[in-house]
Amino acid sequence: MRTTLCDTLGIEHPIVAFTPSEHVAAAVSKAGGLGVLGCVRFNDADELDGVLDWMDANTEGKPYGVDVVMPAKVPSEGSAGEIDELIPAEHRAFVDRTLQQLGVPELPEGQQRDGVLGWLHSVARSHVDVALRHPIKLIANALGSPPVDIIEQAHSHDVLVAALAGKAEHAVRHVDNGVDLVVAQGHEAGGHTGEIASMVLIPEIVDALGGRAPVLAAGGIGSGRQIAAALALGASGAWMGSYWLTTSEYAQSMGDGVLQQALLAAGSSDTVRSRIYTGKPARLLKTKWTEAWESPDAPEPLPMPLQNILVSQAHQRMMRAADPQAVSMPVGQIVGRMNEVRPVSEVFADLLRELEETFTGLDKLR
Amino acid sequence: MRTTLCDTLGIEHPIVAFTPSEHVAAAVSKAGGLGVLGCVRFNDADELDGVLDWMDANTEGKPYGVDVVMPAKVPSEGSAGEIDELIPAEHRAFVDRTLQQLGVPELPEGQQRDGVLGWLHSVARSHVDVALRHPIKLIANALGSPPVDIIEQAHSHDVLVAALAGKAEHAVRHVDNGVDLVVAQGHEAGGHTGEIASMVLIPEIVDALGGRAPVLAAGGIGSGRQIAAALALGASGAWMGSYWLTTSEYAQSMGDGVLQQALLAAGSSDTVRSRIYTGKPARLLKTKWTEAWESPDAPEPLPMPLQNILVSQAHQRMMRAADPQAVSMPVGQIVGRMNEVRPVSEVFADLLRELEETFTGLDKLR
Repeated sequence: MRTTLCDTLGIEHPIVAFTPSEHVAAAVSKAGGLGVLGCVRFNDADELDGVLDWMDANTEGKPYGVDVVMPAKVPSEGSAGEIDELIPAEHRAFVDRTLQQLGVPELPEGQQRDGVLGWLHSVARSHVDVALRHPIKLIANALGSPPVDIIEQAHSHDVLVAALAGKAEHAVRHVDNGVDLVVAQGHEAGGHTGEIASMVLIPEIVDALGGRAPVLAAGGIGSGRQIAAALALGASGAWMGSYWLTTSEYAQSMGDGVLQQALLAAGSSDTVRSRIYTGKPARLLKTKWTEAWESPDAPEPLPMPLQNILVSQAHQRMMRAADPQAVSMPVGQIVGRMNEVRPVSEVFADLLRELEETFTGLDKLR
Repeated sequence: MRTTLCDTLGIEHPIVAFTPSEHVAAAVSKAGGLGVLGCVRFNDADELDGVLDWMDANTEGKPYGVDVVMPAKVPSEGSAGEIDELIPAEHRAFVDRTLQQLGVPELPEGQQRDGVLGWLHSVARSHVDVALRHPIKLIANALGSPPVDIIEQAHSHDVLVAALAGKAEHAVRHVDNGVDLVVAQGHEAGGHTGEIASMVLIPEIVDALGGRAPVLAAGGIGSGRQIAAALALGASGAWMGSYWLTTSEYAQSMGDGVLQQALLAAGSSDTVRSRIYTGKPARLLKTKWTEAWESPDAPEPLPMPLQNILVSQAHQRMMRAADPQAVSMPVGQIVGRMNEVRPVSEVFADLLRELEETFTGLDKLR
């Protein structure tokens, strides 16, 4: 199955995997898709540099990409200490009280990390600078069109730029700014997502762009049938994020434990769209943590990037704790189809097999 | 393009149209799909009987169906007067005040109708009794599985029963109850709708039923590409409601004027999911009316069937008024693709043409 996307990205199959795990990203690239490594978790650009060295050594020369978080409008900036001062005491008290109620232990001495500074514009820029020293094929921005100078910087290194869009007018603006590929992020997707669902959004963006850029379908994809549907809607390929969270490679990079347990147990109704992860609406696994933020005494989430910095240590504490009911994780409605831990190569082969079977089945209807 | 649905329903093309307009329903049946007439607007079963006589005379013997609104749990019952007493004064005052603020005139003397009693269980039963005296092919229930005795009554007349489902477990329960066809109603759909979007919901329901009943995809469908996507996801056909609201035949039955103007102007972001139409979450066109119900002084919507009875006269007043910003109408996110008024035959032919083109295009990717 080849689409224009395959030629654009130099890949064999029109499947792109967005993942914070270098092991998943490398496995997808080796399987003939494009692995895209999420950079937001790297507070330190040197750490990212090291991981990209690993990618270079472990992708057999196959193309891969990176994903940064760069709002078009620059939000609050500053050092970790300065940013900390912008967070109201009421919010800190609510987080502390909630973790106590949920029985989540403190982090051991010396294991506290700073908030996730990857949400800061300056840090995201340092990610781009580092990534462009590696043979990357693509920089994706998880938050729409990146600043035009970043697009030009990427293009001067022959690197393509992708941006997420939840509305057709955003997609057009991205391409006007020089973006090469648009990721149509449907309502069902994990992470930042708008209100328009994939069935409506994908053809709307495809039509609005009129062939100026390939469109990747994101949201609700975890089977070959869903990739076939995305192609029928006019997409050139699938952008999948959530579905890799229950692979063996994900556990290898990010630790297994409670998170994968929680994902394996969840159904398609067990997600919620909320501002509590980053300050902008994002779809998350529904847990006791998301429920606490819906209680009458919960404060309003803070704007980006403050909200993520507020909850960052809480996320670390919940990930280390033993309760799958109290974790915090962006995931899409496809979580209902994530029911076993399998290696990427097996997941990838199944997607291709079912995609082919779906095409054969459709052919018989004619 | 033939699917099992075509054989099940005795139709040529796997497209079912749900519509309150007998002119739309008849035109779809004549075009080779299945027109399904919504009965909720008929307070008087004799009036429905007359309209079904018209259907019998105007469908050239082609199959057609009806749609009733019958909750599995019987809600409040009674005469119009008794039901009226269950509506709090605060709610009436809010409706009156809002209409005044929106500048919506009163109905002329003698033109006030009762609230829409089709939402009452007893009235829906009278619809079924009347419909079974006509050569209908299908009774659909807009609210999930109808009571088992209704299913048996339909089957004893060789009439199939369809039910809407927004979750896989509901679909399984419907089929366990004897329902013959399941309509998978995605989040993007107009009217009553759940949280799971079509891309995830359709294959989930298809898999949960394991071939026990054909699945119709509902929500977000207004093009041949979208029908192709639904088939790729495993559906046997498309259930389309919103898309017929801007046909010439709809105007012929229901009057044109402000409603079609409002729909033609709306984009895919201009809907909202709210309990204000019926008491259960339903997707509506976003207007000054829906905004008023989101204001801090708005009361909580009443439970079904009281909410629709509360707002029924308000709906009539807004439909007669001249302001497309103040109407109340269930419609799905596909409203963004509803941009001109055309006859059903033309719309239907375009759907089939694009469906065929999509299949040809997909074939080239292999």
